[in-house]
Amino acid sequence: MDKIVAGVIGAGRIGKLHINNLKANPRVRIKMVSDIFADKLNEWFKDSGVEQITKNYLDIFEDAEINTVFICSPTDTHANLIKLAAEHNKHVFCEKPISFDDRETIKAYEQIKKAGVKFQVGFNRRFDKNFKEMKTRVKGNKVGDVHLLKITSRDPEAPNLDYIESSGGMFMDMSIHDFDMARYLLDSEVKEVYAKGATLVNPAIGDKGDIDTAIITLTFENGALGVIDNSREAVYGYDQRIEVFGNGGALVADNETSTNLKYYHSNTVEMDQPLHFFLERYNDSFISETQEFVDSIINDRETEVAFTDGIMAQRIAQAAKESYETGKPVKVNNEIG
Amino acid sequence: MDKIVAGVIGAGRIGKLHINNLKANPRVRIKMVSDIFADKLNEWFKDSGVEQITKNYLDIFEDAEINTVFICSPTDTHANLIKLAAEHNKHVFCEKPISFDDRETIKAYEQIKKAGVKFQVGFNRRFDKNFKEMKTRVKGNKVGDVHLLKITSRDPEAPNLDYIESSGGMFMDMSIHDFDMARYLLDSEVKEVYAKGATLVNPAIGDKGDIDTAIITLTFENGALGVIDNSREAVYGYDQRIEVFGNGGALVADNETSTNLKYYHSNTVEMDQPLHFFLERYNDSFISETQEFVDSIINDRETEVAFTDGIMAQRIAQAAKESYETGKPVKVNNEIG
Amino acid sequence: MDKIVAGVIGAGRIGKLHINNLKANPRVRIKMVSDIFADKLNEWFKDSGVEQITKNYLDIFEDAEINTVFICSPTDTHANLIKLAAEHNKHVFCEKPISFDDRETIKAYEQIKKAGVKFQVGFNRRFDKNFKEMKTRVKGNKVGDVHLLKITSRDPEAPNLDYIESSGGMFMDMSIHDFDMARYLLDSEVKEVYAKGATLVNPAIGDKGDIDTAIITLTFENGALGVIDNSREAVYGYDQRIEVFGNGGALVADNETSTNLKYYHSNTVEMDQPLHFFLERYNDSFISETQEFVDSIINDRETEVAFTDGIMAQRIAQAAKESYETGKPVKVNNEIG
Amino acid sequence: MDKIVAGVIGAGRIGKLHINNLKANPRVRIKMVSDIFADKLNEWFKDSGVEQITKNYLDIFEDAEINTVFICSPTDTHANLIKLAAEHNKHVFCEKPISFDDRETIKAYEQIKKAGVKFQVGFNRRFDKNFKEMKTRVKGNKVGDVHLLKITSRDPEAPNLDYIESSGGMFMDMSIHDFDMARYLLDSEVKEVYAKGATLVNPAIGDKGDIDTAIITLTFENGALGVIDNSREAVYGYDQRIEVFGNGGALVADNETSTNLKYYHSNTVEMDQPLHFFLERYNDSFISETQEFVDSIINDRETEVAFTDGIMAQRIAQAAKESYETGKPVKVNNEIG
Repeated sequence: MDKIVAGVIGAGRIGKLHINNLKANPRVRIKMVSDIFADKLNEWFKDSGVEQITKNYLDIFEDAEINTVFICSPTDTHANLIKLAAEHNKHVFCEKPISFDDRETIKAYEQIKKAGVKFQVGFNRRFDKNFKEMKTRVKGNKVGDVHLLKITSRDPEAPNLDYIESSGGMFMDMSIHDFDMARYLLDSEVKEVYAKGATLVNPAIGDKGDIDTAIITLTFENGALGVIDNSREAVYGYDQRIEVFGNGGALVADNETSTNLKYYHSNTVEMDQPLHFFLERYNDSFISETQEFVDSIINDRETEVAFTDGIMAQRIAQAAKESYETGKPVKVNNEIG
Repeated sequence: MDKIVAGVIGAGRIGKLHINNLKANPRVRIKMVSDIFADKLNEWFKDSGVEQITKNYLDIFEDAEINTVFICSPTDTHANLIKLAAEHNKHVFCEKPISFDDRETIKAYEQIKKAGVKFQVGFNRRFDKNFKEMKTRVKGNKVGDVHLLKITSRDPEAPNLDYIESSGGMFMDMSIHDFDMARYLLDSEVKEVYAKGATLVNPAIGDKGDIDTAIITLTFENGALGVIDNSREAVYGYDQRIEVFGNGGALVADNETSTNLKYYHSNTVEMDQPLHFFLERYNDSFISETQEFVDSIINDRETEVAFTDGIMAQRIAQAAKESYETGKPVKVNNEIG
Repeated sequence: MDKIVAGVIGAGRIGKLHINNLKANPRVRIKMVSDIFADKLNEWFKDSGVEQITKNYLDIFEDAEINTVFICSPTDTHANLIKLAAEHNKHVFCEKPISFDDRETIKAYEQIKKAGVKFQVGFNRRFDKNFKEMKTRVKGNKVGDVHLLKITSRDPEAPNLDYIESSGGMFMDMSIHDFDMARYLLDSEVKEVYAKGATLVNPAIGDKGDIDTAIITLTFENGALGVIDNSREAVYGYDQRIEVFGNGGALVADNETSTNLKYYHSNTVEMDQPLHFFLERYNDSFISETQEFVDSIINDRETEVAFTDGIMAQRIAQAAKESYETGKPVKVNNEIG
Repeated sequence: MDKIVAGVIGAGRIGKLHINNLKANPRVRIKMVSDIFADKLNEWFKDSGVEQITKNYLDIFEDAEINTVFICSPTDTHANLIKLAAEHNKHVFCEKPISFDDRETIKAYEQIKKAGVKFQVGFNRRFDKNFKEMKTRVKGNKVGDVHLLKITSRDPEAPNLDYIESSGGMFMDMSIHDFDMARYLLDSEVKEVYAKGATLVNPAIGDKGDIDTAIITLTFENGALGVIDNSREAVYGYDQRIEVFGNGGALVADNETSTNLKYYHSNTVEMDQPLHFFLERYNDSFISETQEFVDSIINDRETEVAFTDGIMAQRIAQAAKESYETGKPVKVNNEIG
């Protein structure tokens, strides 16, 4: 095989993003996209690089040529779609989180394992050049034994309240990327979580039962401690910084900016703000994650983000939520099945 | 009064540091220093700028000319010395912590209040130009309502094990500066602490019942959340960074270095490491703290670090210790008396 | 027209680079490439995205479908190829310099003007995001009237001596990019040049009659002064910095790096070196320059780098050479024809 | 001798600065200050730390106790004062330039040499921690053989027009510091200068026969090339940067700022401007230069800035002026006597 035949389920913001990136990948033929609002997508479809559009995702599963599905629909549809993919023996790229429910996630995991198809979950930040290099150096012992991990992860603006309701909550929706990054960088499981949350950005978020600000302490199996600080709204842009500290030194990754210009004038000295949001900041990593996924299918190798990575990040998110609600540290179950 | 007459109790590292700074202050006459090892200090005494040296600190209290004492002796002697100062109506500059015991501290506080003398506790970092400016801007609403405070505070090397034993533990000895900085920058009391600690630098520190690495989550009365990360050993130098984040923006203070040179060569690009330790990093703030203290006496105004600041920082340290030991968040009592 | 049909003359390093970029451009069909070493290019040709390969560039001119030629052959062939393109009514993208001889260049210019085809010269740096933004801000009066322009431009390693001989000399080969950048950023012609050169990197370069190090002072028609410093060998990588200073402030563009990681360890603090050389540093600008060129053809608009831009940059290079040889400042002729 | 007895001639801005620094130096007794406006200095004199004030500088020379004079009066008085100092066998610290006339300077040099007294010229920037460390590293071969030196030196605002008239011109008044820095960092004489100047800040400066903007190319005896860019007015503060580039790498010294805070908000990201002017930027170096001068007297060693350093910097300034006026490069005479 030198080309995969892809079907994409869901043509919202993230679905369109993946389609656009896949279009430029010479090893991908995008045969079909399904979306319940397919009617409204005619204009976009014309230049999308996709051959067919349908309202019914079953068309994708029933197409014998399509060997790979990209699941970009809402989280509550994922489990069923994964089951269908396993039944139809199609490889799966699935957006995060896989599911809000651990038992459902494990069931999907078993189905995929049994089918023997490739599976990758959409933790795109692993493919960012700064964090990838950081991981390489941590693994190469540049900081020695890791003692502390610090992740700052702040969105530029809170999502709308409708989204909040269906998001699974800040830990499951937003912090989950940081939980994955923590596991990725340290190659160690999180064994305990303590999460302190608050509603400081917008009280209406609290009315929806969610929070918008948090400090989350992680304890890793290898003894290291970690801390994540999250906010739904940093007025200066998307703030994405990471630091790994060990007995051999520290590595610090700063924000990316549009240009590196410094502007000196009579009032102050200015630099660019951090790139606005994930589409700008992680553009390259979104391209890389599907390139790597396609490569893992064509060369029949392990994907770079396993199903179990999705399971573990979700369990940390669930533990964080429980900790926030109970006011106590919560153990994370790292056993699968 | 245009000059204070000072007595200094304790001529260890910090005592000598203050004496050296006071010597250059034209508004200070250093009449006497007491130290139990006075015998071994002859060489140093010659150029110290101090008029007399004694083994007996009572000589200082009994000297009618001396109107101000600088308490630089071990923590377990502070309470008694403060009592004596109050009885002899002398102003007091006291190194942190005031005492390891809250009741003892409160008693000393009552004595000082009754005597009506000036009292300043040695939280020198408040006088650092970066943090002072940060405070000014936070107060000036440059970041709006504060949502998150982050303090990184790491020593370049762990103290020797003997010191560990008498230090009161890492929270009381080291983190206490960060607790004071947190209160100082946010102008808000800490109402709850959760501390996660570990012994990652040196297991022998654990054998002494102490820790060397910690992540401490603070909840402030004004709703803000804070996090402090501490390590007893950063191999690259004294790491002292602070960030205040609010709904109007963020302020970030980085480390100070010896020079700002960048060195580009065939292997890498190099910058200076952070200044080695507190003597280098906070040199100017040590000078300023006693200058300001002297000024508060001469101009009969409030000192810039009140006795209650010492009490509160200690209570946070005690709460952190309790949290670390119990594995639960702990409320901080902010009522005096 | 929604697609150009391209022929590329010369498949050396820069020719291959453009072909690779054009291949990814949906508005380009690369019909033919010519190279005198076509025999040796079979392996590369297979995945090149080019339809035909030939040893004879005349095949390109004689192909009626091809409407655009990319001239990527040695400089001494450019004038003849431009003449042929004008005769065959084909649009031209031509690598810099257009020619080593001003009269020859002007003749080619007249031919292109008469033919009315599009022409763009390969000053790719104009398309770099940092410098483009700098130009936008200078034009937007962010630094007020420009007083000083400073360009640092240093290669990571000297080219081989054979190349030196046919390069036209450092001013014409390397500094020419800086001369164009100077004119681009300031929107003003250079009226006088003073160049001081030296052979400090490698005496063998001097033996070939060239230099490897220079400081070039520019005087602009608008009164501003400029300075370029060049070296053929910066051991730490490709050093490309620019600063524009005026009565309203200054804009400074620094080098780009592979990652923004800082690495603190027991010996020093390290950052990434500048990106190694022009292929890494200006990768995006090479993509943009041909995208913009293609767009100017399809939308029948002016190209972003005019023929006259090539003429002027070459004249500054010639003046610099004369200044270096005579030890005197030299006036630049800014009249065409 | 463990203390020098000083007389200071001239209590203008720079005289007062030195007096203030000398006052804090325990190895200096400031016996007398002379100033033609002594009448107006009563208020300042009270806390100056100086014992006597006089209108007549001869009082200083005739005082047998005074063994050292600090010449802080206008340049045109220097030669006579140096002669008097030599006759009265007093050590001399003299502000730059020593004189506007080379023959006069050489004569003063001969007198000092004959008298055998110490002499230091006020090139304070040599004592700046950044540039001192840069020199140490250049000397320690960190950049290998130096190929290029770049100095940016811009004042925050042009001096008033009266001062311009008596200043000796920008090269002699302002660039002279850069000429000394160039010689200091490279340990090599300048053999040729080419200066391009302009009046871009304020045409009235041109009316006074001076310039306010310049680019100066230096050729060193060791083969290196250098460039200085000067402006009388950088609206963002005092811009003082240096870069040394060689075949082993490059060292870059950036501006100093008041704090290292970064401020991220909804419009931009801000940093501190460079320190405002020389009093702020070079405060520490002014302290060090007289400390070192005093030390050279007490320990009878060479001063760190020799009389010949003053001569050479002036000759480069004179050559720069001639180059600017003639439009040609000018050789610098490096022979004394």
